[in-house]
Amino acid sequence: MQVALVGITGYAGMVLYQLLQNHPAVSGINLYDHKLTKASELDQVVPIFNGNQTPVWPYDDDAIIKDNQVVFFATSAGVTAKVAPKYLAAGFPVIDLSGDMRLKNERQYLKWYNKPAAPAKFLRQSHYGLADLVSAKAQTYVANPGCYATATLLGLAPLVQNNLIEPDSIIVDAKSGTTGAGKTPTPSTHFTQVDENLQIYKANRHQHIPEMMQALKRWNEQIPAIQFMTTLVPIRRGIMSTIYAKVRADITEQMLTEAFTQTYQDKPFVSYTGNQLPDIKQTVGTNQCAIGTVYNPVTNTVMVDSVIDNLLKGAAGQAVQNFNQLFDFKETQGLKLQPFLP
Amino acid sequence: MQVALVGITGYAGMVLYQLLQNHPAVSGINLYDHKLTKASELDQVVPIFNGNQTPVWPYDDDAIIKDNQVVFFATSAGVTAKVAPKYLAAGFPVIDLSGDMRLKNERQYLKWYNKPAAPAKFLRQSHYGLADLVSAKAQTYVANPGCYATATLLGLAPLVQNNLIEPDSIIVDAKSGTTGAGKTPTPSTHFTQVDENLQIYKANRHQHIPEMMQALKRWNEQIPAIQFMTTLVPIRRGIMSTIYAKVRADITEQMLTEAFTQTYQDKPFVSYTGNQLPDIKQTVGTNQCAIGTVYNPVTNTVMVDSVIDNLLKGAAGQAVQNFNQLFDFKETQGLKLQPFLP
Amino acid sequence: MQVALVGITGYAGMVLYQLLQNHPAVSGINLYDHKLTKASELDQVVPIFNGNQTPVWPYDDDAIIKDNQVVFFATSAGVTAKVAPKYLAAGFPVIDLSGDMRLKNERQYLKWYNKPAAPAKFLRQSHYGLADLVSAKAQTYVANPGCYATATLLGLAPLVQNNLIEPDSIIVDAKSGTTGAGKTPTPSTHFTQVDENLQIYKANRHQHIPEMMQALKRWNEQIPAIQFMTTLVPIRRGIMSTIYAKVRADITEQMLTEAFTQTYQDKPFVSYTGNQLPDIKQTVGTNQCAIGTVYNPVTNTVMVDSVIDNLLKGAAGQAVQNFNQLFDFKETQGLKLQPFLP
Amino acid sequence: MQVALVGITGYAGMVLYQLLQNHPAVSGINLYDHKLTKASELDQVVPIFNGNQTPVWPYDDDAIIKDNQVVFFATSAGVTAKVAPKYLAAGFPVIDLSGDMRLKNERQYLKWYNKPAAPAKFLRQSHYGLADLVSAKAQTYVANPGCYATATLLGLAPLVQNNLIEPDSIIVDAKSGTTGAGKTPTPSTHFTQVDENLQIYKANRHQHIPEMMQALKRWNEQIPAIQFMTTLVPIRRGIMSTIYAKVRADITEQMLTEAFTQTYQDKPFVSYTGNQLPDIKQTVGTNQCAIGTVYNPVTNTVMVDSVIDNLLKGAAGQAVQNFNQLFDFKETQGLKLQPFLP
Repeated sequence: MQVALVGITGYAGMVLYQLLQNHPAVSGINLYDHKLTKASELDQVVPIFNGNQTPVWPYDDDAIIKDNQVVFFATSAGVTAKVAPKYLAAGFPVIDLSGDMRLKNERQYLKWYNKPAAPAKFLRQSHYGLADLVSAKAQTYVANPGCYATATLLGLAPLVQNNLIEPDSIIVDAKSGTTGAGKTPTPSTHFTQVDENLQIYKANRHQHIPEMMQALKRWNEQIPAIQFMTTLVPIRRGIMSTIYAKVRADITEQMLTEAFTQTYQDKPFVSYTGNQLPDIKQTVGTNQCAIGTVYNPVTNTVMVDSVIDNLLKGAAGQAVQNFNQLFDFKETQGLKLQPFLP
Repeated sequence: MQVALVGITGYAGMVLYQLLQNHPAVSGINLYDHKLTKASELDQVVPIFNGNQTPVWPYDDDAIIKDNQVVFFATSAGVTAKVAPKYLAAGFPVIDLSGDMRLKNERQYLKWYNKPAAPAKFLRQSHYGLADLVSAKAQTYVANPGCYATATLLGLAPLVQNNLIEPDSIIVDAKSGTTGAGKTPTPSTHFTQVDENLQIYKANRHQHIPEMMQALKRWNEQIPAIQFMTTLVPIRRGIMSTIYAKVRADITEQMLTEAFTQTYQDKPFVSYTGNQLPDIKQTVGTNQCAIGTVYNPVTNTVMVDSVIDNLLKGAAGQAVQNFNQLFDFKETQGLKLQPFLP
Repeated sequence: MQVALVGITGYAGMVLYQLLQNHPAVSGINLYDHKLTKASELDQVVPIFNGNQTPVWPYDDDAIIKDNQVVFFATSAGVTAKVAPKYLAAGFPVIDLSGDMRLKNERQYLKWYNKPAAPAKFLRQSHYGLADLVSAKAQTYVANPGCYATATLLGLAPLVQNNLIEPDSIIVDAKSGTTGAGKTPTPSTHFTQVDENLQIYKANRHQHIPEMMQALKRWNEQIPAIQFMTTLVPIRRGIMSTIYAKVRADITEQMLTEAFTQTYQDKPFVSYTGNQLPDIKQTVGTNQCAIGTVYNPVTNTVMVDSVIDNLLKGAAGQAVQNFNQLFDFKETQGLKLQPFLP
Repeated sequence: MQVALVGITGYAGMVLYQLLQNHPAVSGINLYDHKLTKASELDQVVPIFNGNQTPVWPYDDDAIIKDNQVVFFATSAGVTAKVAPKYLAAGFPVIDLSGDMRLKNERQYLKWYNKPAAPAKFLRQSHYGLADLVSAKAQTYVANPGCYATATLLGLAPLVQNNLIEPDSIIVDAKSGTTGAGKTPTPSTHFTQVDENLQIYKANRHQHIPEMMQALKRWNEQIPAIQFMTTLVPIRRGIMSTIYAKVRADITEQMLTEAFTQTYQDKPFVSYTGNQLPDIKQTVGTNQCAIGTVYNPVTNTVMVDSVIDNLLKGAAGQAVQNFNQLFDFKETQGLKLQPFLP
């Protein structure tokens, strides 16, 4: 299968390219980039791929559709909002790692991304691909979830779907490394600023909030809102989403652990470790989400520790998982990755 | 003034020694250590003090009382529980950085520290020295607060003392660097384990929980409990205590910010920065606590970001501040420190 | 093929286990450990392999020989010096990641390792497996090179083998992350000590010096000695060996680059990048050694920058490469690894 | 004394400002900046000085001379080359942290800095202020040495001045943290790039090479050149300059250590620690240079390990030391700093 990849210059595109090279169903990868006006070579475009002279083509919808059977977009916000309708109209399979086609509501997109949304009729055709909970099989357009949204929603699903917590009590204190902030050098990602520091950012303004609310409300319409905060920590890769919620009056600790066990027992990419709380390190390098829980009877609060590699399960790994589902390949194909230990 | 310092081998003792050397009221520092059986020299006991041949004496209560006017204990749990009564009986001033004399209740100490407490009559004579909110003036025995407790209580005080939040809604997600975990090499403080990782530890079991509850209940007896979690982050120094609470129905955002402003406007060592959320870096190297707040009307939640240098405001700096109060020196004496920028 | 692995508890053993699991010629891995007295399970012995209940057996030569076709030792110094003779006597294939069987001279081993060596007759039968320069094909006992030795010897080989530099002018300033220092927690690997620090260690005393001299002298008997220094840097994985040497009077810059090009042009695991100096990051996660060179006409000095992942090319990766050579598998089998980017 | 500071926006200016605030001879600090066109406030110009409303004025030579008794320039290359003549003509004291007035030779400046130099007659009037080896007393214009130059020259001085080493054998492998690379965000100082990485940069092209050669030749005209390499390491502050040289035939190890001892025994800011090799950490936070040496009889090579805090001894600290010398204050005034331990 020939696959197209748009956006190799970003971190997620770079990792996705590595995964696709090892995927048994992929016979060739065609690279495209919006910034090019004429064909170039990969190590010219991304110097770290030193010696790799794979061609990179200027972005071209028609060429992508003609020469490939699927396209992955690892582009920044605003790109696919414009081009998604063409692919949807053509019925051409797309896996979109950007946030453009995740929200069903145009105004929500405009509010949180501060850019014009794709027309609502196309937004409605997009599938929100939280791959461990819903399959992309037979879909055309997959909106791959955001990194924070993935860790947080997988941590919340058993509680919210089974109505185990007070609906208005969800508080999420999420931590991420610098690859989540993108490749462009900025004052807040300068080594001198990140190192030996913790920085809270986008307080109550993170653009993953509406996609989480959209999913949570679909699972349980009683959830009114979530308190969601993000802190930049001095690591490169990994997200820890620490989730707190008050447990409903009639719910026991055993019901909590059973909900997690049942939700994830057959899921190859989610590990529920009970009250053994996972470190970030256990998942970095893999497509795994590891989840631990601790119930505190004194405060009647459940704490969920959900960790992922933001570039794999939170981006490129889940994209490949959606690709596998969409084409009905074995779900784990190309994703048998070992954690980057020690 | 001659001062005694017991426990130079730990991180807090090391930093306290540096502060006392620069304190204008201190004419000499006598060092004592429990592990010695005969006198040694500082750079033999703590190699990093290369070239410093100040004597270090075996621990000896009588010598301390005879040759000094005050003693600082920077010792681990279990040491001062045994010796505090002697100093209290003698009316000799003590500033105790350990947790031994913070709790008024013997059983609480036994439960959280798993060691026998000092007798209750002595515990009652100890002053819990949260120096920015209560003065140690004319006290004999000051129990210097724990690092997490300091950051968290200073962040909560305006809310709890002014009854602005729902009493059962407090959730604290606190993060600390490795100096908070002590100097002894362990698997969980090995560079290979800490680096590029986040580790939740002592979930619901951190020994600073009871001292926080003791203070909170004194401020507002309606507070039933707090949810308190600690995560080890790959930095050396600094604590960020991220605090969440539901705001009471009749309370406005302005009332929240006014409470912080009024509580701290005359406090030289607490900076309230409104909704400019402080980074850890702004306080590292100083005795400052910096606090920012953001109110979220969607969830009716206030988030407090309270940051300190765990070895200064969270240990040695606050100890000197208590020393200044106890002897009625100017509060900022010996503590005009600049943040370690950039 | 059934393979035995002794020493899963160390960093190199852990990574080797991951590689062997993905190796197409390996049908089963039997784990053995010297510290066990009865069989256990992997996640009991190494908690990071959470959920993996593969049995780990007490070390037993006879069982290893009976149940496997090859054994990998990822053990610390002193272990294989004792057991190597038995395997050699039995003609059973061994790949030994420790330093015990690298030196041909018993007294050298005793001097640098401070332990008794294996008998000289067995040392002579061991093959020093610097896999990119000499094949282990048809060998019985492969002594896998040390991590520093690998990076340094690959950087020096074209210069020394082609007699391009002044023999007494070699200076190596090597830098390594903490995984090179092993898993046991020590004061010098405590996060607080490593972080924001550089520490020179084992000045002129590093045990890889004699194995490098043994190889260099074999290539060019004029080399009298090398100046070799090691600095611990705050990273987990990776070695950079920065090598300096005076260029011989009649040698041109072009002759230098040609020597590197010719030595490595057909080597799948060594990349010569000319005067593009490689970062450590380009090799971490792979079995690659990347080498760049810069000639300075002002000082008549060539600087070689040789970087590897110390746990892969410097340990487990090269071990698998030797395994492939020994059994005449394709050299790259099980080693098509992508760098851990970004 | 009123002092002017130009360039508070850079790292060195920031730290210099902190030092001058604590200097007993400084009654007021007037801040000026080239980028301003009208007066501003410090926390507007440098947000980290949150709450500090000290005015910052547009740069103005005449105002500086009229309102101050000395000016410190912490500006980037190219600024003082233009304005130095005016101050020299006026006989107004300047301490210049930039590289503009360090080289005596106009063409050398043009070659290494790629900018036009100040006229040679002014360059000749500038004093190269390597403060531990030569006093700035009664000078007008002090060119404060570069950070790498300071660590390297202090490490080499005893060897070169006493003619103990082979003149053409000097090799310097210097390592620096990111504050040495400046505040402007770039791809090579992005956290994701620096973290877990080592990067060699400016191979044989570092602009501190000519100022080192100028000093070395003055000390010993036989020195033809030095081999000087720089590696960026994942730390914020600190330089380690690792220096190698062949020892002259008639020189003993004792003569080496005596040369260091004698050169530095009365110097308050240089510590010679013999063969105890200093870590970077011992000097960070102070104006100290710590130097250790190890002689290797096998290679007849001396290795010098010279460490400093690049922003203090390598910039702002040495600038204050020069200020003290220039005005004949006690050399240690305002510089009694403790290392930032642990």
